[in-house]
Amino acid sequence: MRKEYLLTPGPSQVPAEVLLRMAEPVFHHRTPRFMDMYKALVEKLRKVFMTAADVLVFASSGTGAMEASVVNLVPKGKKALAIESGKFGERWTEICRAFGVAHDVIQVEWGKAVNPDDVAAKLAADKDIVAVYATLVETSTGVEHPIKELGAAVAKTGAILVVDGISGAGASELRVDDWNVDVLVVGSQKALMLPPGLAVLTVGPKAKALLEQVKNPPAYYFDLKAALKAAGKADTPYTPALTLMLALDTAVSSLLEEGMENVFKRHDKYARAARAGMNALGLAVYPERPATALTAVLVPDGVDAEAVRKTAQKKYGAALAGGQDKLKGVLIRMAHMGYVGPMDIVIGLAALEMSLADHGVKAVPGAGVAAAEAVLREP
Amino acid sequence: MRKEYLLTPGPSQVPAEVLLRMAEPVFHHRTPRFMDMYKALVEKLRKVFMTAADVLVFASSGTGAMEASVVNLVPKGKKALAIESGKFGERWTEICRAFGVAHDVIQVEWGKAVNPDDVAAKLAADKDIVAVYATLVETSTGVEHPIKELGAAVAKTGAILVVDGISGAGASELRVDDWNVDVLVVGSQKALMLPPGLAVLTVGPKAKALLEQVKNPPAYYFDLKAALKAAGKADTPYTPALTLMLALDTAVSSLLEEGMENVFKRHDKYARAARAGMNALGLAVYPERPATALTAVLVPDGVDAEAVRKTAQKKYGAALAGGQDKLKGVLIRMAHMGYVGPMDIVIGLAALEMSLADHGVKAVPGAGVAAAEAVLREP
Repeated sequence: MRKEYLLTPGPSQVPAEVLLRMAEPVFHHRTPRFMDMYKALVEKLRKVFMTAADVLVFASSGTGAMEASVVNLVPKGKKALAIESGKFGERWTEICRAFGVAHDVIQVEWGKAVNPDDVAAKLAADKDIVAVYATLVETSTGVEHPIKELGAAVAKTGAILVVDGISGAGASELRVDDWNVDVLVVGSQKALMLPPGLAVLTVGPKAKALLEQVKNPPAYYFDLKAALKAAGKADTPYTPALTLMLALDTAVSSLLEEGMENVFKRHDKYARAARAGMNALGLAVYPERPATALTAVLVPDGVDAEAVRKTAQKKYGAALAGGQDKLKGVLIRMAHMGYVGPMDIVIGLAALEMSLADHGVKAVPGAGVAAAEAVLREP
Repeated sequence: MRKEYLLTPGPSQVPAEVLLRMAEPVFHHRTPRFMDMYKALVEKLRKVFMTAADVLVFASSGTGAMEASVVNLVPKGKKALAIESGKFGERWTEICRAFGVAHDVIQVEWGKAVNPDDVAAKLAADKDIVAVYATLVETSTGVEHPIKELGAAVAKTGAILVVDGISGAGASELRVDDWNVDVLVVGSQKALMLPPGLAVLTVGPKAKALLEQVKNPPAYYFDLKAALKAAGKADTPYTPALTLMLALDTAVSSLLEEGMENVFKRHDKYARAARAGMNALGLAVYPERPATALTAVLVPDGVDAEAVRKTAQKKYGAALAGGQDKLKGVLIRMAHMGYVGPMDIVIGLAALEMSLADHGVKAVPGAGVAAAEAVLREP
């Protein structure tokens, strides 16, 4: 017997009720029963993301929905603007490149958040840009970008704002309509408390208007026009991932029962508790604008983050994430989104505390957990 | 309480063991645990499809993997050859069109099977054709195409054979390597006894060589080169649909336990039983080369197939499929692939028999079931 604690930024923990929902007998998707389920699910997703926009559900990982939001929304002769600030922001650029979509890039230093003024300046200088591709939570660095301010800046222009909210949407505060997010991409295996395999996309009116200007996009499985047309009839162009959709219904129902404002507050509290605990362990929070969905910290000089992470996993059963690409070996990332409670923060910090001690990092025993508890005890 | 019997050609029935496998706690996919599972799954899939080829698993419906096999395999200046014989064959053409892939089409009358000589003639006449896109079971008409003969014909040329085996692979006899199938596309929700949401693709050596000739394909999520590279390390380029993969492992393990030769024989027997029963009910089998995965029949003149189908569903709980597009209202389709036993044939025929009687179609009561039983009783 070995008890494992999943604290990685995707996949995240899935409640037993959600897992068991997938064990329901499969039924056909071209039926009133499916249509009723689908309509109810869309209404719930609208409430979770605070939008009146169209909502699409794809059988794919979040990356598939990112691809959909690039290939369908940039007319020939126009441009995308990709904001890169880590591995996931770079994905926007990679998708543009794969499909020959003309694009400009804003490079943000890893660990930093984008400055909305820089985006506004780019948009003012280049009228060919029709869509800005941003990231809510750059999971590779732990930065949460200022989407509200970015949305306000982009909304003043003719361009749309597309946000990769794969990591964070449903945990971090995010108000799609109020914040002028025209397209939101979400993956199932993060704050939505589902296993991987499903992507959700919201498509607002400004994005729908742009969609009409794109003739013959390089898309079939991810053809947004076809998907929107089918969605209007509570249908999907291709066979939907039924069991994951049923599970999603269970998961978002529990989010709505809690209430999104409470969901946001809960995650904010856990994030503050995690940061307080990390600081008490002598670990510096890496990003300048830390996410509510996960906390990324630097280990002290001379310590191998990968070794610490592996000990936490092997000896104490806590699955944390390391750094990616250039941050491998220096960063440790702990997720606190979705199906998490105060004890997940305690578990993560205790595992790190013990593992750090095992690797010769001196800290006051219990200091990490104690610092977190001071936050967790807040009403 | 209402007991339902799922006899549609996808989704199909899923064994409880497979459904419950999805309720296992989620774990991270960049781990030795995932790699071990993935490698074992690939080995099992190779045995199911009788191939030494590379095997890829996508989080998508089967259509996504069809797209992958088009956009990555036709170099600029070369051509695809799509075989159309129904709604699903037409999908090959639609995908070519969506991505601007040059293509020729062989039109086969609905209900008929392709003649491999026609394909050989096209290939001889047009040396630009590098890939032939065929269908194992054209679900819309119930035809099973002669893939073995087609493979033999295509293998004599420089072109590759890509087969949409979404419906039927894992039920109908299909020997990927012996039959010279260079790429096979399979969906999870048919003979593989899984819920929808996963697609499997085999990529043989001739296809891999062709892949190398395609520079900058319009692909990202469905980039085959990236997927093959990751698969070589028991990894996936993007987050895999873990729970469905675990379920697939359970499902294919049970196929292999039965043994593929026995699986083929079982399905062949059910198909013959279904056809015998349908004929005894006065329903003519529609396709000229009927599939082992499903049986498509014409209702007598003056009878509304949709009305019969709806009664079978509503009054007797048997979910059958109707005709699609031009066959709507004239065709009824009953699947017998995957998790089926002799009683599924009995159920389907009895439901149809009663429903036909309800709609005034005279037949000897019990004749359909009796005719099927004569086949089902074979050793």
